Amino acid sequence: MLSFECDYNTGAHPRILEALVRTNMEACKGYGNDVYTEQAREKIRAACGREDADVRFLVGGTQTNRIVIDSMLKNYEGVIAATTGHISAHEAGAIEASGHKVLTVPGYDGKLRAADAEALIESFYADGAHEHMVFPGMVYISHPTEYGTLYTLEELKEISALCRRYSIPLFLDGARLGYGLMSRETDVKLTDIAELCDVFYIGGTKVGALCGEAVVFTHNNAPKHFFTTVKQNGALLAKGRLLGIQFDVLFTDGLYFEISRNAIDRAEDLKQLFCEKGYRFFKNSPTNQQFIVLSDEKIAELEPLVRFEVWERVDAEHCAVRFATSWATTREDIEALGKIL
Amino acid sequence: MLSFECDYNTGAHPRILEALVRTNMEACKGYGNDVYTEQAREKIRAACGREDADVRFLVGGTQTNRIVIDSMLKNYEGVIAATTGHISAHEAGAIEASGHKVLTVPGYDGKLRAADAEALIESFYADGAHEHMVFPGMVYISHPTEYGTLYTLEELKEISALCRRYSIPLFLDGARLGYGLMSRETDVKLTDIAELCDVFYIGGTKVGALCGEAVVFTHNNAPKHFFTTVKQNGALLAKGRLLGIQFDVLFTDGLYFEISRNAIDRAEDLKQLFCEKGYRFFKNSPTNQQFIVLSDEKIAELEPLVRFEVWERVDAEHCAVRFATSWATTREDIEALGKIL
Amino acid sequence: MLSFECDYNTGAHPRILEALVRTNMEACKGYGNDVYTEQAREKIRAACGREDADVRFLVGGTQTNRIVIDSMLKNYEGVIAATTGHISAHEAGAIEASGHKVLTVPGYDGKLRAADAEALIESFYADGAHEHMVFPGMVYISHPTEYGTLYTLEELKEISALCRRYSIPLFLDGARLGYGLMSRETDVKLTDIAELCDVFYIGGTKVGALCGEAVVFTHNNAPKHFFTTVKQNGALLAKGRLLGIQFDVLFTDGLYFEISRNAIDRAEDLKQLFCEKGYRFFKNSPTNQQFIVLSDEKIAELEPLVRFEVWERVDAEHCAVRFATSWATTREDIEALGKIL
Amino acid sequence: MLSFECDYNTGAHPRILEALVRTNMEACKGYGNDVYTEQAREKIRAACGREDADVRFLVGGTQTNRIVIDSMLKNYEGVIAATTGHISAHEAGAIEASGHKVLTVPGYDGKLRAADAEALIESFYADGAHEHMVFPGMVYISHPTEYGTLYTLEELKEISALCRRYSIPLFLDGARLGYGLMSRETDVKLTDIAELCDVFYIGGTKVGALCGEAVVFTHNNAPKHFFTTVKQNGALLAKGRLLGIQFDVLFTDGLYFEISRNAIDRAEDLKQLFCEKGYRFFKNSPTNQQFIVLSDEKIAELEPLVRFEVWERVDAEHCAVRFATSWATTREDIEALGKIL
Repeated sequence: MLSFECDYNTGAHPRILEALVRTNMEACKGYGNDVYTEQAREKIRAACGREDADVRFLVGGTQTNRIVIDSMLKNYEGVIAATTGHISAHEAGAIEASGHKVLTVPGYDGKLRAADAEALIESFYADGAHEHMVFPGMVYISHPTEYGTLYTLEELKEISALCRRYSIPLFLDGARLGYGLMSRETDVKLTDIAELCDVFYIGGTKVGALCGEAVVFTHNNAPKHFFTTVKQNGALLAKGRLLGIQFDVLFTDGLYFEISRNAIDRAEDLKQLFCEKGYRFFKNSPTNQQFIVLSDEKIAELEPLVRFEVWERVDAEHCAVRFATSWATTREDIEALGKIL
Repeated sequence: MLSFECDYNTGAHPRILEALVRTNMEACKGYGNDVYTEQAREKIRAACGREDADVRFLVGGTQTNRIVIDSMLKNYEGVIAATTGHISAHEAGAIEASGHKVLTVPGYDGKLRAADAEALIESFYADGAHEHMVFPGMVYISHPTEYGTLYTLEELKEISALCRRYSIPLFLDGARLGYGLMSRETDVKLTDIAELCDVFYIGGTKVGALCGEAVVFTHNNAPKHFFTTVKQNGALLAKGRLLGIQFDVLFTDGLYFEISRNAIDRAEDLKQLFCEKGYRFFKNSPTNQQFIVLSDEKIAELEPLVRFEVWERVDAEHCAVRFATSWATTREDIEALGKIL
Repeated sequence: MLSFECDYNTGAHPRILEALVRTNMEACKGYGNDVYTEQAREKIRAACGREDADVRFLVGGTQTNRIVIDSMLKNYEGVIAATTGHISAHEAGAIEASGHKVLTVPGYDGKLRAADAEALIESFYADGAHEHMVFPGMVYISHPTEYGTLYTLEELKEISALCRRYSIPLFLDGARLGYGLMSRETDVKLTDIAELCDVFYIGGTKVGALCGEAVVFTHNNAPKHFFTTVKQNGALLAKGRLLGIQFDVLFTDGLYFEISRNAIDRAEDLKQLFCEKGYRFFKNSPTNQQFIVLSDEKIAELEPLVRFEVWERVDAEHCAVRFATSWATTREDIEALGKIL
Repeated sequence: MLSFECDYNTGAHPRILEALVRTNMEACKGYGNDVYTEQAREKIRAACGREDADVRFLVGGTQTNRIVIDSMLKNYEGVIAATTGHISAHEAGAIEASGHKVLTVPGYDGKLRAADAEALIESFYADGAHEHMVFPGMVYISHPTEYGTLYTLEELKEISALCRRYSIPLFLDGARLGYGLMSRETDVKLTDIAELCDVFYIGGTKVGALCGEAVVFTHNNAPKHFFTTVKQNGALLAKGRLLGIQFDVLFTDGLYFEISRNAIDRAEDLKQLFCEKGYRFFKNSPTNQQFIVLSDEKIAELEPLVRFEVWERVDAEHCAVRFATSWATTREDIEALGKIL
């Protein structure tokens, strides 16, 4: 069946599988000490334009958020995030399970505003009782956000400046980073992110890998003995090559960007399709996740024909639904959808 | 270079890669709700001979130990293990990081004795101050152990009976389970383990998979909302198919057992080789890890020619070293080693 | 200087000190196994009208909240509270440090509404992705609230019914319980609370004790091995008598209620005083905490003469300030304040 | 009944109660910001001979151990202690509950040897796989130990030098510090401890206070925002005066030392008594805890007449029992015991 319900429903980009097959019988060092992982590190550092970046590979998004946040915060600190941030809502309390509060500010189409974070920090320090409260110790943003929206370069600069003013790190969750970077409506480049953030990750799971996220500590600021912390959290792969090979392939000849662009192109096709058919959009998303308002009747009609995700109820008779494209979506998929609509 | 340093230095069994390639473009449900994962569950239940087993897939061994132990213990409970147990020594404090003490008893060639565990439990309850102490809440054993040794069926029955007497679960870490089951010197079958343990895992990472461990809760005793616990620990794969497909292949036509037998056969070849050349064994291991005593001089001589792991110092001039075979070791590898020795 | 800044600025009620002095050289069993603690338990059970209540003593409020919540929740559960709840805002992340998310709903003058909690729970279970989210596992309310306000019996019944419908415990933080029970504007009795809640605590620290809170598990539902959990959290007093004696005194001849009434009477005097002088109230509080709006100028004028707490800014020129009475506040204190105003 | 079962069975030294009564109605600042706490800090700094010491007050021993250790260790670090150390055995897993492993070395009459700790550290760093293991991050010793024994100044210097060589803090648990300092067989002074340790605590609970331990960070090395950490752990007293006043009294006119000497003098009397009656000692203890070997028959005979603690079984017919003196033990108590024996 035609599938638009998410961007992780297919396997890996064929070139990744080819590389796994090609290197399969080579004996590699374990735990990420193999040559492929080293190559991947080097290529990502180059793509980020930072010689002093420290790149580590982890398996999934929630794992990455939990480990990065916990290893960079002191016990008395929490992390500022939008209420709609993935860590606030959809990670089963992973951050709290590691001991830290998520300090929420309103999200605007998924985006956190520097002014809100600043107000939170200022009001914290202005409070005479702030030593009885959780210290704001980091700002977390996702780019693209959970609603597919993007920060402008100006917005990122503002948030980054705020963090530096208060000497707290800025962490960018890039689970879908490729789709953000290749959007037609962005002025943010990977090198900007590497410059403005203290740590961020380049999502693999949702952008063509079987699994894997590349964490970039942008200025030699990886927490001391991060390797041991990863092990302690059960996140260390014995066959670290599985991550190294995948990111080596993704960052060879610009594959990561190329396949991300495909998702964007198909999302634009899809957007046009819904537009032409007169559908209303729930959010204006410049990335691979498109949110459309459908009547309950229409949903019932489409469900046997195409997979999509019902996102949230809009009114008594309508819901917002999500159609996601990915590196794997083809023109044929879009055409088939056109016929169904 | 010839490589015997561990059993996770190559990729995956070719049939696994074939299945990943074959299914790659199919759209599957995420988070382990796909058909391959369901098939793998069913096949493992059948292999275990238990209709009431609940099978879950996780990514790695330390992760599995941490999540299983934490989700089955109460906050005031700890887990009994041999001092040489993986959780006691080589998991960077993962169990303690989740809040639980590892209560150690001596290991005998890696094995825990029922009598020692019982003495610990009895002395705990006999202590007037035991409410100020950590309650023994589980017994953890590894099979094969970290020294490649195996429990006899009789020993397993004793430990199991002890656990049932005190109503605490028995957890068996089967990171290398295949190599234990296919040993020429064992009387323990998978169905025995499924009957005697409350929870155990069938190791994939070290037995032919890229990654992955199959956790078996043997009698519908998976902790409530285990899925959410897995997510909270950052251990949930979006593309759960990666684990499902691998275990589906491993448990089709007995592949798991067949490739495990290869490791055992090659280990016996290797053992014979060292015997013939007059080397001394550090431990008598009936599985794929062989521990040999080498002089420092010999080690220096071999190191440029073949990879192996220096395990521990035996005396001023000798060390124990580990040579491991795996599903991937060939007769040619053994012959090549023979020439070097 | 005249002191109204809080209800814990003086020592203990004289009768408590007398009892400490009188019993001082008696050799008592440690850890709460002494006769005074047992007497206190019995008297509290009687005051609550519940034979099946299990009463435990802890040292302070945050400690009590953290231990009670953590010991009653599963790892995958969080606690619902108003955004203004003490656990949400002013306990330095104690709940999160124990691994649990505080799931916030709006506070109305400090009070949580059953309808909001219900909406949160219903929307949780209605969410297709709820297994990726924190399970609502408890409702936490404070009575009096952090703003001195009180639930009506009807409101408590509604919240209690909600909790029972969803089989989650209702926990009432009674740090200032005495002041709530003796308010002139309440229809809630201690026996009501004991019937409607699953666990609550009777605050001592703010109601005449040097320290100490009496936790009441209302129906023999204390978590298993709660003693060990208390020890593990560093909350077990070797000289448990310190808590037992204090609560024994407080619950002899109704002292707890009598001294609470004094605080209420003095608060009413104070309210009248501010009313007569034409001051505006920030909140209408029926208990011992009174919130008044003062101009910055007036604050500067009063600060050298009387202690009170600046609560929050109301507008560019005014702040809300808190004047608290307590068991120790005298008519003379109020008269002195009258002269100052 | 005559009571020697522990050193925390009576209340507080009368001068403490007098001070509590005398200051009772004074309005003090909360949370340890009162003048008495400040005075106590100053006096303890003076007694330690260190202007740069940072003194904090906590309520009990396990609480202190847990908070100090957790706040000084990184997540990937554990604490080295003797197997008989209080944190290893009798704190219900408090250290592990805060996420850290206790790395044990043998105890010799309760004492840890520098050589054993050094061997553990060296073998850790020599291990090629040490990044998969818990980093040794602190050394914990108790003085007096759990067996009443004492380190010599030379031994302390050795352990201290070891810690400084590896840049890890030395933490001394002084739950019974007074009894150690006033022993007739010690060459260790408080100023030595303050010089050789990075952090230690001066026990109050077992030395004349109702509760309370004074933590001394010896060289301005209190963890950042320790106040907030204390709050988060539920260990902050609203009426901090309770701790401040007690330690103010204990460190006025050398009371702490004087009452500790009384315990030592009575212990020597008691020792002589048992000696004269021909009893065998289980340990040779120079402090207030005396361990005597009694036959089961004798134990049964004494139990209705005098309270003592059965410590551990020695052989089929004998147990070691503990008789503890304290600041409150009188000559009359010893004489009465003599008559019973």
